[in-house]
Amino acid sequence: MIKQKAIVLFSGGRDSSFVALLLDSLGYDVTLVTANAGISPNSWKTAAKPAKILGFPHELVKVEKYIYEEAAKIAEKDGFPLNAIKHIHLKVIEAIAQKYCKTHKTIADGTRRDDRTPRLTYQEMQSLEDRYKISYVAPLLGFGHKAVNNLSDMMFEYDKIWTGKKPTAEYEIELRLVLEKRKKGIVKKIFPKNHFHSVVTKVKKR
Amino acid sequence: MIKQKAIVLFSGGRDSSFVALLLDSLGYDVTLVTANAGISPNSWKTAAKPAKILGFPHELVKVEKYIYEEAAKIAEKDGFPLNAIKHIHLKVIEAIAQKYCKTHKTIADGTRRDDRTPRLTYQEMQSLEDRYKISYVAPLLGFGHKAVNNLSDMMFEYDKIWTGKKPTAEYEIELRLVLEKRKKGIVKKIFPKNHFHSVVTKVKKR
Repeated sequence: MIKQKAIVLFSGGRDSSFVALLLDSLGYDVTLVTANAGISPNSWKTAAKPAKILGFPHELVKVEKYIYEEAAKIAEKDGFPLNAIKHIHLKVIEAIAQKYCKTHKTIADGTRRDDRTPRLTYQEMQSLEDRYKISYVAPLLGFGHKAVNNLSDMMFEYDKIWTGKKPTAEYEIELRLVLEKRKKGIVKKIFPKNHFHSVVTKVKKR
Repeated sequence: MIKQKAIVLFSGGRDSSFVALLLDSLGYDVTLVTANAGISPNSWKTAAKPAKILGFPHELVKVEKYIYEEAAKIAEKDGFPLNAIKHIHLKVIEAIAQKYCKTHKTIADGTRRDDRTPRLTYQEMQSLEDRYKISYVAPLLGFGHKAVNNLSDMMFEYDKIWTGKKPTAEYEIELRLVLEKRKKGIVKKIFPKNHFHSVVTKVKKR
């Protein structure tokens, strides 16, 4: 049986690590990819260490800077970052589909049921699958935050990086830089303070 | 580490079998349950053999007949069965939550992203979790039908039971009987002909 090749959009955090292990256990041949637009050219490397810990190949996918400009305008207008991050997410998934659709028939991300996660609509998923002839899968979409957190806690040890304190491989880092350049002081108003990103440091249980 | 106990709503088909194996691999202690309202009192036993093949305990959850009467009215009005089956599904999940919430903190079903599956809304999921202090999980919700079918084909051998030909443990069997009793000949108009239920006969790969 030939293993089906899957791309997992990877930040180094618990959710995308969970997805990678889950797809691996279902028999997929997993490659991790992290997006970067060159605004904070090294921040994607934060995901390299967790990728090594998980034991999957890890690649960079370059995305266009203008996407972050568009997202910054959305965040400015909204006064909160959710829709801006969703905008980046959709464009990143598109870039991944374009780059990998000939070789990888499955593209996965760590979207959860939790409504604060950026998520594709049903129509966006369908459109992506039809245009690129791939399967888009979001294995955590059927789990609430309590269930995901419980499972993650059993699987991983991780560091908490409080938002904005240190670079991580999340979209947020580059979005913050673009916003700050556009309007000094705006970042503090737009991003919630009591929010952290996780960076996996150890796999306790596969 | 104490294993978390999970109930999986089980028909003996590929989707609910997939969910059972997936939760088992994530470390849950799985119990399968099949719903029956006593209208076709033995049809739930179709799920007993697949349950034995999977190797998990299997229990019956009794539901009230009036739920199927309500569903029959919905199907008559609509002219198609989807909303009626959704109505039964929600009431069955409620009955399971009521019966098991003290002992099992996770309740799972085989709902897929595919829009023909009966599915709970986000609000219904939240309400269920809040009222019964459980986690509702639907691990296939993040997978499209192509991805689920590919994975199922790798995992299982199964029989195809064409709809209405033989009893299966699906809601449809009892709904058909109620409808036929209410109005002779209506079943043929309401249910699609080219539809089958799967019954798992072998696990090829865990």
